[in-house]
Amino acid sequence: MNIEIINTGSELLLGVTTNTHLVYLGERLLSLGLRIARQTTVPDNATMRSVLAEAFQRCDILLVTGGLGPTSDDLTREIVADLSGRPLRSDAEIRQRIQQRLARLGIPFRENMLCQTLVPEGAEALYNDHGTAPGLYIPASTMPKAPHIFLFPGPPHELKPMFQNQALPILKRLAGREIAVEQRIFSIIGMDETSVEEKIGRHLLRDGRIEVGYCPRPNEVDFRVIAPSAVLDEVTPQVYAALGEHIASSIGETLEQVVVELLRKRKETLAVAESCTGGLLAHRITNVPGASEVFLEGFITYSNQAKSKTLGVPPSLIESHGAVSKEVAEAMAERARYLTGATHTLSLTGLAGPGGLSCLQPIGTVFITFASQGLPTQTFQNLLLAERQIFKQLATQTALNILRRALLNRGLSELQVKSQG
Amino acid sequence: MNIEIINTGSELLLGVTTNTHLVYLGERLLSLGLRIARQTTVPDNATMRSVLAEAFQRCDILLVTGGLGPTSDDLTREIVADLSGRPLRSDAEIRQRIQQRLARLGIPFRENMLCQTLVPEGAEALYNDHGTAPGLYIPASTMPKAPHIFLFPGPPHELKPMFQNQALPILKRLAGREIAVEQRIFSIIGMDETSVEEKIGRHLLRDGRIEVGYCPRPNEVDFRVIAPSAVLDEVTPQVYAALGEHIASSIGETLEQVVVELLRKRKETLAVAESCTGGLLAHRITNVPGASEVFLEGFITYSNQAKSKTLGVPPSLIESHGAVSKEVAEAMAERARYLTGATHTLSLTGLAGPGGLSCLQPIGTVFITFASQGLPTQTFQNLLLAERQIFKQLATQTALNILRRALLNRGLSELQVKSQG
Repeated sequence: MNIEIINTGSELLLGVTTNTHLVYLGERLLSLGLRIARQTTVPDNATMRSVLAEAFQRCDILLVTGGLGPTSDDLTREIVADLSGRPLRSDAEIRQRIQQRLARLGIPFRENMLCQTLVPEGAEALYNDHGTAPGLYIPASTMPKAPHIFLFPGPPHELKPMFQNQALPILKRLAGREIAVEQRIFSIIGMDETSVEEKIGRHLLRDGRIEVGYCPRPNEVDFRVIAPSAVLDEVTPQVYAALGEHIASSIGETLEQVVVELLRKRKETLAVAESCTGGLLAHRITNVPGASEVFLEGFITYSNQAKSKTLGVPPSLIESHGAVSKEVAEAMAERARYLTGATHTLSLTGLAGPGGLSCLQPIGTVFITFASQGLPTQTFQNLLLAERQIFKQLATQTALNILRRALLNRGLSELQVKSQG
Repeated sequence: MNIEIINTGSELLLGVTTNTHLVYLGERLLSLGLRIARQTTVPDNATMRSVLAEAFQRCDILLVTGGLGPTSDDLTREIVADLSGRPLRSDAEIRQRIQQRLARLGIPFRENMLCQTLVPEGAEALYNDHGTAPGLYIPASTMPKAPHIFLFPGPPHELKPMFQNQALPILKRLAGREIAVEQRIFSIIGMDETSVEEKIGRHLLRDGRIEVGYCPRPNEVDFRVIAPSAVLDEVTPQVYAALGEHIASSIGETLEQVVVELLRKRKETLAVAESCTGGLLAHRITNVPGASEVFLEGFITYSNQAKSKTLGVPPSLIESHGAVSKEVAEAMAERARYLTGATHTLSLTGLAGPGGLSCLQPIGTVFITFASQGLPTQTFQNLLLAERQIFKQLATQTALNILRRALLNRGLSELQVKSQG
């Protein structure tokens, strides 16, 4: 199967928008054992026509993103219909769905939205539950020569559910006879990619049926193993033996999902007190559906006054040790536990930079305290050498990993990391 | 000038690595007034040869990334030399530089690194200060037909300084006679893309020198205008006249940057009380460097108990109206203002779903209250029809826009939006 992707959108070529579709589609296609042979990005102009025409001659399956909206730069639907020799017809059900959606949003249906109701003859609509423009599936033809074509809207939150729920089943059918490979992603926390390669990746590569890959993220390495399903099941225990508790998940869960699930199973609760991470820890936790069962409250005590007034951290403690200190982190976590009655609390206080107050600690310092019912309170000092947003990501990742290990009854001593970046 | 980019690397097509080169190169080229006509991603295999050969026929300038390393999957240099009809010769200066670099790192020079010293006849080396593989510039030729070609190493920290210091001056010379265009992006809040097109986009398009584009994001449209600088300056006031206060920024700032900057100028402070958005509002605000000057505190009162105990919202109010209600949103904002003494507070309470408690309101409902010194407290009810994370994004976007407009002394009445999604 020769599969190509065409991403349309001038913003992708103008230094504005990063193409995130390609990674998503590549991962999803690989889950069917399918690989992308070539990907092209074109601006919203006449080039699109020649790029599409060329791909029509080369590939078996063509996925196109973007250009299905109602504005003048949305050209995909018409060019594809024309190249496929399929006249466009307004579809009553699509029109009804769009009108219903707009009515719910209180937006009038206007003449220029009509183009979104058009479907090439013989094509199948992929309904859009998160926007107006439907996607389309056009089966392959020989006269004119055309591959199986899927058209998707550009916004990721519209494309992803449409791909997953409507396109994937069709693709699965088309892929039918391919030799299926599978991938397993091991989320590794607290270990760099070179160590992952040395401990297991290099060893796995000796088996010619296995492909490995490493994707480093802030305080996480996604270690991918690609192989036929049976081989994958065979080597998974080897990966666990080599990397052990560094593996947060092997089924694609985020660290916050793992933690919320562990809390839920234990019927325990969590509260957080954040200074330098400014709400990111609470945000990550509350991204998990069902978080309200375990997450009670977050205190974003950004100013010193907030630390004292809301949490009850003594001003004298802040004065003598500084807001970024072990003592203040501890007081934040313990006061938050006292105020909320949560089983566990995490607190963070640090200096993200740039700039920063006259502080006793260097920029990048963060103190993380874990306080828990019936356990001694523990504080971890880290130096995170990264710009502001990566600093916040690293700090919350480290805090969540402390909680994960505590919930698994694993030792926390080795988490006394000195620095990352 | 027809410019194309070819990114090589199997990892880009396997759902592993996001292509960040394209945004970087797009932005840098546009700073010279140059546009990318087409971009292609190819795996490290035989497809690369045909993709390169096709591009040779089409373009004037070709930028290629990746495939210059010492391993078996690094094919770029040899294929390009072969297609250009230029024999490869080992370059003494490159060899010396690589040996010096390796000596500094304590790595011996090995036979398989020799390929990195090879330069096609007539080509110019682009030295690599951050890795071993040099880049190459090969001037255009007619026999065989070949464009100006730039080869860059794949790692971003090697490519970027090489591009900036060595390739950009050559590109500037090549671009010489082009009419430089510039791009201005207007971030539009509270208006859909069709309305932006009707109010101004359509009108601007009548001028043949102007290009427009629309990139929809959650409760935001990035409206792009590309034109020669003088034309852009001429039409900017027209865009402001047409879209007015819906324009949050025309210099690429995020909404949270705009709000923090407005607060800073007015020397005013902000506190937030969040329920359904679980910390995202505070997180977005604290992503802005210098936020600590204006942001005092966030209360993430996720549970009802937290709303009562921490903020002091009367339990009877929650009981009689429900946690997701105008009354509770108002109490949250006013109590947060009382507790922190902030000039302004924003509060959010809503139902993100999926699932949810037995609630008087439908899933997607959010109440946002804005409370401010010397102003009547105002509450806005929205219905945000979107999955959990987009719901949080939409709700915080709406809250930040309420604050932005209030800080600009603009009326808030039209923000009584019914629903979005």
